[in-house]
Order: sequence, then structure tokens, then C-alpha cells
Amino acid sequence: MSSTRGLFITIEGGEGVGKSTNIDFIAQRLQRQGIPFILTREPGGTPLAEDIRQLLLTPRDEAVAENTELLLMFAARAQHIAEVIEPALAKGQWVVCDRFTDATFAYQGGGRGIPMAKIADLEQWVQGDLRPDFTLLLDAAIEVGMSRASKRGALDRFEQEQQNFFENVRAAYLNLAKQHSHRYRVIDASQSLAQVQQSLLTVIDEMMTAGGA
Amino acid sequence: MSSTRGLFITIEGGEGVGKSTNIDFIAQRLQRQGIPFILTREPGGTPLAEDIRQLLLTPRDEAVAENTELLLMFAARAQHIAEVIEPALAKGQWVVCDRFTDATFAYQGGGRGIPMAKIADLEQWVQGDLRPDFTLLLDAAIEVGMSRASKRGALDRFEQEQQNFFENVRAAYLNLAKQHSHRYRVIDASQSLAQVQQSLLTVIDEMMTAGGA
Repeated sequence: MSSTRGLFITIEGGEGVGKSTNIDFIAQRLQRQGIPFILTREPGGTPLAEDIRQLLLTPRDEAVAENTELLLMFAARAQHIAEVIEPALAKGQWVVCDRFTDATFAYQGGGRGIPMAKIADLEQWVQGDLRPDFTLLLDAAIEVGMSRASKRGALDRFEQEQQNFFENVRAAYLNLAKQHSHRYRVIDASQSLAQVQQSLLTVIDEMMTAGGA
Repeated sequence: MSSTRGLFITIEGGEGVGKSTNIDFIAQRLQRQGIPFILTREPGGTPLAEDIRQLLLTPRDEAVAENTELLLMFAARAQHIAEVIEPALAKGQWVVCDRFTDATFAYQGGGRGIPMAKIADLEQWVQGDLRPDFTLLLDAAIEVGMSRASKRGALDRFEQEQQNFFENVRAAYLNLAKQHSHRYRVIDASQSLAQVQQSLLTVIDEMMTAGGA
């Protein structure tokens, strides 16, 4: 693998679909297969990007303008790409990233109604040709996710949004999956954990073939 | 120009050209003329934009990617426009802003060599049609500020780099003034303070005519 570029894998999904548990499972599997990889997340992934994430998550009196939120998201992403993602991929490591630009399309685009074209402009400006090789979408009905997420404790600013918001987010994700079917793998997260993980194993096998591992 | 909308005035210039002193002078003059106005500055101008400014100014071990710096600049700007500049202009107040997007063109573009087209893309994305009605460029030769250093002998490598950087910033500003001559007024900041202020009075008269004051 060291001579070839690593695979860029993103994990997407709404609240409470079991992203963390399943990312752990994927990591264990890659480790067992001897594949060099890093785990990272968005927004965040570097100290500066984490500082930007804090600016986004902190509730404040001042209304955060739509454009501001989007530019901060992409500022954190630009830093994450330059400092973490690109160097790892160039070294031949796989990058497993908890959310990426599709989350911006889903949350800011689908959820908040910011035009997808505005987001696509920034995607192109920041990423050039960089896109995930595989995107795993953990999909479940909103009622399933909300009840799991609320058990974790206090809801942050994004989690407080209305159910309607999450319906729109889910619809946007499913639409992205249709649009980019070559890289998307949709996994039914309402299945039992054993069933979800069986689906993940199938996708990981496919990725290993694609990555030449 | 609608008589109800305020004028958007930006003050630009390199280091040590007397921006603060001359902004105070402009403010006093507008106040005496009974013109409703606000003073603000970039990067900053709102609590969130100031937080973003802090992220940019804080020295850190992590290299800040060019794209990150530019996106943070424009994130602060988007917030400043949405929360401060546009509401004031819409109410008929004049907005006097210490630096604006032209500073990004001059410092990040001219100084750091980031392609002007990349900056122009973000300018368009963030501002749409919003541009200053008047931009006052306080211009002076770099040697004025560098004279103390050069008297100590030949410039060392760091001082030469600094000089080159500021020469490039100045050249970029003068180029912007040529490109946007309809809104730019270049004031020779190497004149005596009395002469500079006489030039400012002439421009303020012109602005009052344009603003219908």
C-alpha cells in the first residue's frame, strides 16, 4: 500500500444512527487486516479546526449568519485536509472520517435550506478534485435516531432543531446517495447491530479490493 | 444611489500610514455635519467575528493553511456584513470601516501571493453586489516606515523580506485603486497631517454630495 494513495472513507448519517459504534467496528476490522489507517472527524481533526468547531457549537446570543456558519465549516475542513487528510492519503494510509462535506450538504443544505449550489461552490473552492472514495451512509427513520441521541444527555444547538429539520437532513443524505451512487453505500441502521456489522464487513471487503489491500 | 441607504466607506492602507488618526478625524467631521454613521473594523466588528479574529491572530504551532486563513477572514466578514454593515446601511447610516476586502486582496493576495482570482471568488460568494461606495487609500512609501532600520546599516534577510512584503502590499493597493478608480480616493499619507486632513475634507465633501447629505 505504501506506494499507492490511501482510500478516503467517510461515514455519514443523522443523529443516533450508531456512527461511533460502527466506526469503532470498522477500525477494528481494518486493524485486523493490517491496513494502515487514521480515524478523524469533522468539524475538527486538528487543534485549529477543533477551535473552529467550538465556535460553531457554542450557543451564543448573536445570531450566526448562514454564510458565516458555512465558511467556518469549510475553514475547519480546509485545515483538516491540509494538515491531516492529504498527508495521510499521500503516505498510503486510509482515512476514515466521521462526517465530511456531505454532512454540510445534508445539514446546512437539506436542513437549513441553504442552496446546494452555494455549498458546491465552496466544496470546489476548498477541495478541488478531492472527494471520498467511499461514503457509508448509516440510515434510519428519524424516530429511531432521536430516541437514541436524547439518551446521551444534554442536546447541543444542532440536536435541538425540530424533527422536520432531521427529516430534511435524512432526505438530503438519501438524495446524495442516489446522486453519487458510485461511492455511496447505504446501510440500514435500524437493523440489529449484528446485521449492521455484517453489512459493514461486505463493504469493507469491497473497499479492500478497490484499495488493492 | 437611494437617498435612504447609507454610504459604505472603507479606509485602507499599509502599516503606519496614520489610519487611526485619520479615521478619528473623519468621524469628528461626520458628527459635526450631523450625518448618522457607525465606525467599525475588520477583521472583527461583532463578538463572533472578534472571536474569529482571535483565532487568526493567536500564534500557534500548527501551520495555518492558506485556504483556512482566507476562509476565516471571509467568515468574520460575512458575520460583520450580516450583523453590522447591512443593517446600518439599510437604516440610512453611513458605515466607516477600518479595512475591508481590499485588505485581503492587498495582504493575502499581494503580500502572500494567493491568487487574486481565488479571493475574488470568495468576495463574490460572500458579498454578492456589496462593494464600498468610497475607499480612501492612505498611501506612503515603505521607506518612511523602514527608515529607522535602514539607518542601522544594510537590511538583514528578515528586514528585506518584510520590505518586499510591504512593497507588494502597497503595489497591490495602488493597483486596486487604478482598477476601481470610481470608488478609490488615494491620499498621500507622507504629507503633513494638516495637508492630509485638507485632502480628507475634500473627499468628505464629495461623499456628502454623493450620499445626498
